[in-house]
Amino acid sequence: MSHPDAFTRLIQALCVLPNVGPKTAQRMAHALLQQNRQGAAELAHALQHALKQVNHCLDCNTFCEGERCNLCADPQRDPQRLMIVHMPADVAAMERAHCHDGHYFVLMGQINPIQNMDLNSIALEKLVQRLARSTISEIIIATAATAEGDATAYVLIELLKAQPYRISRLARGMPLGSEIEYVDAGTLAQAVYERKQLNHTP
Amino acid sequence: MSHPDAFTRLIQALCVLPNVGPKTAQRMAHALLQQNRQGAAELAHALQHALKQVNHCLDCNTFCEGERCNLCADPQRDPQRLMIVHMPADVAAMERAHCHDGHYFVLMGQINPIQNMDLNSIALEKLVQRLARSTISEIIIATAATAEGDATAYVLIELLKAQPYRISRLARGMPLGSEIEYVDAGTLAQAVYERKQLNHTP
Repeated sequence: MSHPDAFTRLIQALCVLPNVGPKTAQRMAHALLQQNRQGAAELAHALQHALKQVNHCLDCNTFCEGERCNLCADPQRDPQRLMIVHMPADVAAMERAHCHDGHYFVLMGQINPIQNMDLNSIALEKLVQRLARSTISEIIIATAATAEGDATAYVLIELLKAQPYRISRLARGMPLGSEIEYVDAGTLAQAVYERKQLNHTP
Repeated sequence: MSHPDAFTRLIQALCVLPNVGPKTAQRMAHALLQQNRQGAAELAHALQHALKQVNHCLDCNTFCEGERCNLCADPQRDPQRLMIVHMPADVAAMERAHCHDGHYFVLMGQINPIQNMDLNSIALEKLVQRLARSTISEIIIATAATAEGDATAYVLIELLKAQPYRISRLARGMPLGSEIEYVDAGTLAQAVYERKQLNHTP
């Protein structure tokens, strides 16, 4: 079965979506054109509108409309503490956890040599510029607890260690609510290795 | 439908199994008597044999046949470090993680006031006796990262804090391999709160 060119082109275009291969793309294309042409038109417009409107925040590098995002524009946030994360979704997760009242910097990526993502895939230069014009005293590296997160954290530490910032990284160990029996071996080993001393007996 | 007394008695007896209610117990009883009388006989014998043979290890309080378990009898283990856990399954999990080369003490329970499990539901007295005849210098409290685990840890700390042991607790934070975006809010907050400083800048 051969498709008209425009259909084939749409299928190929849909393959840019994460985790969408040719088969899924074909199903999507069929659904859009056969059952929901209005939805397809709206998707096209939304894409064009977003491409025109959505920029990177000048301060934290996250997606925003306008020059600065709401968080960076908020005078209530502590200007001394900066948390560095991979993605905008991580900012949202942190805000849901109500555990950081300072500012963020969004790298918009991570170091992942296997996927050819090197230093250029994270916004290091913009971070350096951000730090140069700030009053930040503490930097919290909140990269993922994965190999890619470790690699990214390592690059950040190398970049920042000569500067007069207090640098810390998220604690690793037992997730809240976990029973020993069901925690994976790597996490258990980490939790024992980084166990927290509770008294001052040497 | 009424059952003969012996059948009813078996159903009630099966209800002692965890997470087995009357309906499940009835299904189990039916399966055992109708389809697998040999299995039922073996289960009865295994129960009797276990009740006769399985004791608590005199040192670590885990289940074992004989006086001492294999781990306590092993001269290779570091006699200075004792890890306190809730259950035998926790010892198995730690051994799989290869992160502790000392000895264990198994409380065989946890503090859970809602389920009427108080100080008597953990082997505190036996722990005190164990410590009295040991050369232990460090105690690692490896209770669960749950409310019950916290309550149990609190009781242990109160019991031990006047003694000359170095007392520590498993680290809590991001589990290995986790992305910020998918970690629950409580764990994120804990990971930020207990973030690890990486340099010595004040």
